[in-house]
Amino acid sequence: MAARISRDAPEPLHVQIAASFREDILGGRWPAHYKLPPEPALAEQLGVSRGTLRKALAVLIEEGLLVQTRGRGTFVTAGVLEPRIAQRLHSLSEDFRAQGYALDVQVVSARLEGLQMAVQALLGAPPGTPGLRLVRVFRGAQGPLAYLVNWVRADLCPGIEDVDFERNSLFDVLEKSYGLPVTEGRRTFSAAPAREDVAEALEVPTGTPVLYLEQVTYTRDGQAVEYSDVWINSTAVKVTSLLTR
Amino acid sequence: MAARISRDAPEPLHVQIAASFREDILGGRWPAHYKLPPEPALAEQLGVSRGTLRKALAVLIEEGLLVQTRGRGTFVTAGVLEPRIAQRLHSLSEDFRAQGYALDVQVVSARLEGLQMAVQALLGAPPGTPGLRLVRVFRGAQGPLAYLVNWVRADLCPGIEDVDFERNSLFDVLEKSYGLPVTEGRRTFSAAPAREDVAEALEVPTGTPVLYLEQVTYTRDGQAVEYSDVWINSTAVKVTSLLTR
Repeated sequence: MAARISRDAPEPLHVQIAASFREDILGGRWPAHYKLPPEPALAEQLGVSRGTLRKALAVLIEEGLLVQTRGRGTFVTAGVLEPRIAQRLHSLSEDFRAQGYALDVQVVSARLEGLQMAVQALLGAPPGTPGLRLVRVFRGAQGPLAYLVNWVRADLCPGIEDVDFERNSLFDVLEKSYGLPVTEGRRTFSAAPAREDVAEALEVPTGTPVLYLEQVTYTRDGQAVEYSDVWINSTAVKVTSLLTR
Repeated sequence: MAARISRDAPEPLHVQIAASFREDILGGRWPAHYKLPPEPALAEQLGVSRGTLRKALAVLIEEGLLVQTRGRGTFVTAGVLEPRIAQRLHSLSEDFRAQGYALDVQVVSARLEGLQMAVQALLGAPPGTPGLRLVRVFRGAQGPLAYLVNWVRADLCPGIEDVDFERNSLFDVLEKSYGLPVTEGRRTFSAAPAREDVAEALEVPTGTPVLYLEQVTYTRDGQAVEYSDVWINSTAVKVTSLLTR
């Protein structure tokens, strides 16, 4: 590794290191999920300062080849986005953005509708409760990442149908505009064939395996406030958990 | 709800309550993911003791209709197993068994092989390191739940190829027989079409969407000890996370 780095070369050291690591990753010597040695050891091995090493790592994180988690280390990604939404109650958009990914949110529709019976029961809403049905597509640089259909109890957030959800995250709106802190959530993950509307939104053939996420979100006192169905494009996104025993 | 319960009926109260709840669930009034009211409120509503209520809940948990998490409440399941393996570093078998499910582990093969190059790199093993390739099918009452291919660094656990993995969990063996505590893990979840061997093991048609889990497990000092590919039958199992913000 260190052999490929030269103080006499015209490129700055961190650029050389990034190039060397990139070769390790793309060449398979560091495969997907590989955990890099701790920074101090790696810096020593390379004979550079930790600052220089960090600059090199930052380049590869920016390129999506590495992912770093405070206190857990630096890992080679599987070449896809790796949100940690199975582990912490972040919204998908918050999680992508926290990882530094540009995210383009397209609102397909946002209107008040009667809640479907199952959703009404799930949200503990009386019959006739109005619901916001919010349909969105999250796009990354490479194309569609996720297709989301949210149902929100509109009686708890009057006027929510007028919010611009291309600019505001749903959790943010609930918390900041309506004083409904999102405190808890329950998510299940499974694989499903893409239905026609899902396939169209994710730009994949109908029937393509997609990651299917069902979510119920609670605000204070265990009041369910939102239910959603989310389909995630598995060729672009893998849900990641870093776990301790 | 309370109207369906009678102290004069011949069935014990908890049996009546369980029957009433079962009707609520199967009839859709309490849909999948529905969170039941807190026990004290529910007991009061029914006019019964918490002990009686708990007996009724235990019946439905045993039937797989409800799932309960300490401190988080009681939820209606999606009619499938709901391991929490995205959230805590339990092995799949530990998690199923902790939830009270009977699990039948079939070992398809368990033998020493040279580690594949990518696995060798992932595990930080020198070239020529022997690996245990362990192939298993986990079956529940309804059929196959998961198909698992694990690669273990055999140089760290001599003789592991002779362990009976139909009776012992891999994590247990690493910890108890080889003093390799499993301290950390990294898991990614995505959807994938079932390849031929996966389809055969899970008894589904080739190409069926299945939940695909990749895992690297670490022991002390961040030493990677095991890599696995796991395919989960999404018609029988949904991975569940209970999250706080």
